[in-house]
Amino acid sequence: MEQFKVVLADHEIPRQWYNIQADLPTPLKPPLHPGTGQPVGPDDLSPIFPMNLIEQEVSQERYIDIPDAVLEKYLLWRPTPLYRARNFEKLLNAPVQIYFKNEGVSPPGSHKPNTAVPQAYYNKVFGIKRIATETGAGQWGSALSMACKLFGLECRVFMVRVSYDQKPYRRLMMNTWGAECIPSPSTLTEAGRQILAEHPDSPGSLGIAISEAVEDAVTHENSRYSLGSVLNHVLMHQTVIGLEAKKQMEAIGVYPDVVIGCAGGGSNFAGIALPFVRDKIYGKQISIIAAEPTSCPTMTRGPFAYDFGDLAKKTPLLAMYTLGHDFVPAPIHAGGLRYHGMAPIVSHLVKEKLIEARAYDQVETFEVGVNWARTECFIPAPETNHAIAAVADVANQAREEGKEKVILFDWSGHGLIDLASYDAYLSGKLSAYELPDEEIARALRAINGFPKP
Amino acid sequence: MEQFKVVLADHEIPRQWYNIQADLPTPLKPPLHPGTGQPVGPDDLSPIFPMNLIEQEVSQERYIDIPDAVLEKYLLWRPTPLYRARNFEKLLNAPVQIYFKNEGVSPPGSHKPNTAVPQAYYNKVFGIKRIATETGAGQWGSALSMACKLFGLECRVFMVRVSYDQKPYRRLMMNTWGAECIPSPSTLTEAGRQILAEHPDSPGSLGIAISEAVEDAVTHENSRYSLGSVLNHVLMHQTVIGLEAKKQMEAIGVYPDVVIGCAGGGSNFAGIALPFVRDKIYGKQISIIAAEPTSCPTMTRGPFAYDFGDLAKKTPLLAMYTLGHDFVPAPIHAGGLRYHGMAPIVSHLVKEKLIEARAYDQVETFEVGVNWARTECFIPAPETNHAIAAVADVANQAREEGKEKVILFDWSGHGLIDLASYDAYLSGKLSAYELPDEEIARALRAINGFPKP
Repeated sequence: MEQFKVVLADHEIPRQWYNIQADLPTPLKPPLHPGTGQPVGPDDLSPIFPMNLIEQEVSQERYIDIPDAVLEKYLLWRPTPLYRARNFEKLLNAPVQIYFKNEGVSPPGSHKPNTAVPQAYYNKVFGIKRIATETGAGQWGSALSMACKLFGLECRVFMVRVSYDQKPYRRLMMNTWGAECIPSPSTLTEAGRQILAEHPDSPGSLGIAISEAVEDAVTHENSRYSLGSVLNHVLMHQTVIGLEAKKQMEAIGVYPDVVIGCAGGGSNFAGIALPFVRDKIYGKQISIIAAEPTSCPTMTRGPFAYDFGDLAKKTPLLAMYTLGHDFVPAPIHAGGLRYHGMAPIVSHLVKEKLIEARAYDQVETFEVGVNWARTECFIPAPETNHAIAAVADVANQAREEGKEKVILFDWSGHGLIDLASYDAYLSGKLSAYELPDEEIARALRAINGFPKP
Repeated sequence: MEQFKVVLADHEIPRQWYNIQADLPTPLKPPLHPGTGQPVGPDDLSPIFPMNLIEQEVSQERYIDIPDAVLEKYLLWRPTPLYRARNFEKLLNAPVQIYFKNEGVSPPGSHKPNTAVPQAYYNKVFGIKRIATETGAGQWGSALSMACKLFGLECRVFMVRVSYDQKPYRRLMMNTWGAECIPSPSTLTEAGRQILAEHPDSPGSLGIAISEAVEDAVTHENSRYSLGSVLNHVLMHQTVIGLEAKKQMEAIGVYPDVVIGCAGGGSNFAGIALPFVRDKIYGKQISIIAAEPTSCPTMTRGPFAYDFGDLAKKTPLLAMYTLGHDFVPAPIHAGGLRYHGMAPIVSHLVKEKLIEARAYDQVETFEVGVNWARTECFIPAPETNHAIAAVADVANQAREEGKEKVILFDWSGHGLIDLASYDAYLSGKLSAYELPDEEIARALRAINGFPKP
């Protein structure tokens, strides 16, 4: 009988996260204070994040121990299975082996709890009592709600109003895990009240929600803010995915030629990729691909520049690929990929040509996602479909070139709460969308005058 | 580090199903032809089911080989993990160990594919090209849609119209897997047209949907009907759950004192319980509990009698606990438990006192389900919450008696597509419901005049 998956026992879970900062051939560009243009220091960030996470953000240690209390929570769903997609391979009819990590087995159904749990833990041990955050489609808000409940922290999530109204299921998940989910803009913050005064019917945006969450955190006692992607420590927590995958592939004696992940803020991609980027830095022949949407082509078409992480210009300036902090992505269904910037670590790796980025249109990603669902059965999240599109792309190339390839990718989450997007695709309501060149010109204007990295 | 789960490798999956008919101390009462009052024979059933499944239905073989083609599909998600619910144990603060099989890891999120896959397979090898079925809340319809796609069969699902309108997500799952989902009553069948002529706005019922599906199957070439619970072969396919659980508990050297499953038609309960019922028949001390809703208390309050399996009186008469074929259960959120009867095998075991049944009210099941979600994180299906209520019940008793207990139960599915029911609970919109005694009197009238088992 053929083998379809590799499972690890609880005791085989990785005990450390991998911090790629220790291995980068050239150092990351530091975040800058927008007022002074100087690198931000720990004290600048301490009202927003607990100091133990700030230390992780700048750590140069190669491996950082996963605390026992975090491991114990990880074991609620980790190690996740490594699957071989034999049925999808047959459909593609290409000389490829396709392996994927199924991160959809977590309680909220995505990779997000891999960082939500340690973030809640580090806040807890630092003496913090409550966390505020923002969420778009709700994947991050639901993961953090769950993590806060596990460590007895209060949690308030500002959810973009249009998503709050249109996607009630993830909000209900947050409530079930005991968190407060507030449609943003809200009357609970000065930022929200200002927006509502001018636009009482504002549908909200991620930028507004970030402003509300940060304000909420700094104006409440024993509170901090939490971010679900982009930052160095967030990406590091996600490396548990790639570290497990390596163990699992070693167990069956294979090593990937190609590693793929979809990338919005960058944490899912980094989770599967960074342990393999290390191998590449030390000489391995391996191709590592980040898949993004053509409607939000940050890495494939944006400039590498210093820019704000949010619309409201509340964050430090980050050195990253960006479409400009004022960019409003088209309302594609892969809500997790609608971010104007890209994690500084992922951006740095693209710049250094250690990884490459490819963009796929929403329509082709759903086409391949439906083919996936009809062979491998698990219905992918719309974000995940971008990674599967890259897998099919690589497989088609392998067929044309007659070259055998072993592909590994991160199946970042299931789409059971995103089925309305499949309905839109199956009923022919989706159309292709290529970002107009004018938008790239606008991006260049948005960063005009900022320091150059 | 404490162990939280036991995983099995692909090659450890059970190779046979367990057929309890070989071990019953007294034989099952046969299904009767309603016209003649005589036991139905294979030929009576052959227009509805393929002969290979009819043979399984009446087989007395103790173990039946799982075909390789079925095993290969099972491996897409099986073996499922056996978890120890350490966090929920702490919350209960009772001298119990609680283990559960997580059947929510399957692609549609429940135990239903365990029988959908072999049913599709046996139809396929018998030369059948398409299957018709009915579904209430949609768990069964989605599982069969997936299974038919895996074996290249067409699939038409008649979904109770009120659910079709109110619960679009499971219908969208069916579409994503390529099946046709028709709101019932429909104009596609004589049965549906008759209902619509009298009641153009009929919200439908499971009874009507069954009539439509059976008519559809017998009036189309190379078509058969498929049922997701109740029948002997369906329950047998589900024993893969209990057989895996036994292996997993053996691996850590424990054996349960109590085995629990929720029961609507009986297949989920039977799946976890039957391999342990065998041990009990051969002398093991073990308590086996089926959990049902107080609003549909088939086993705890209904008579054991011959009755029809459906409202339209299309099925043979089955010897079972029943609330009468004309019973309309209250619209509780655990749609999978709203069935007037109970599988003949499960009914027989209750009658023989090899298992016991307990009933729980919807409100208490959601209370315990939310406690579960806030400790073990996985959000249970409303049906599954009934099993968890029984677990808490047994644990409370163990605490009072100061007795240690090892509990095993089937976590039959996740509740991510049922979150509206959690919303109703959390916002105080659910109320307790006890079936009035008049309804039991009505049940007795419904079976009046039928043969006695």
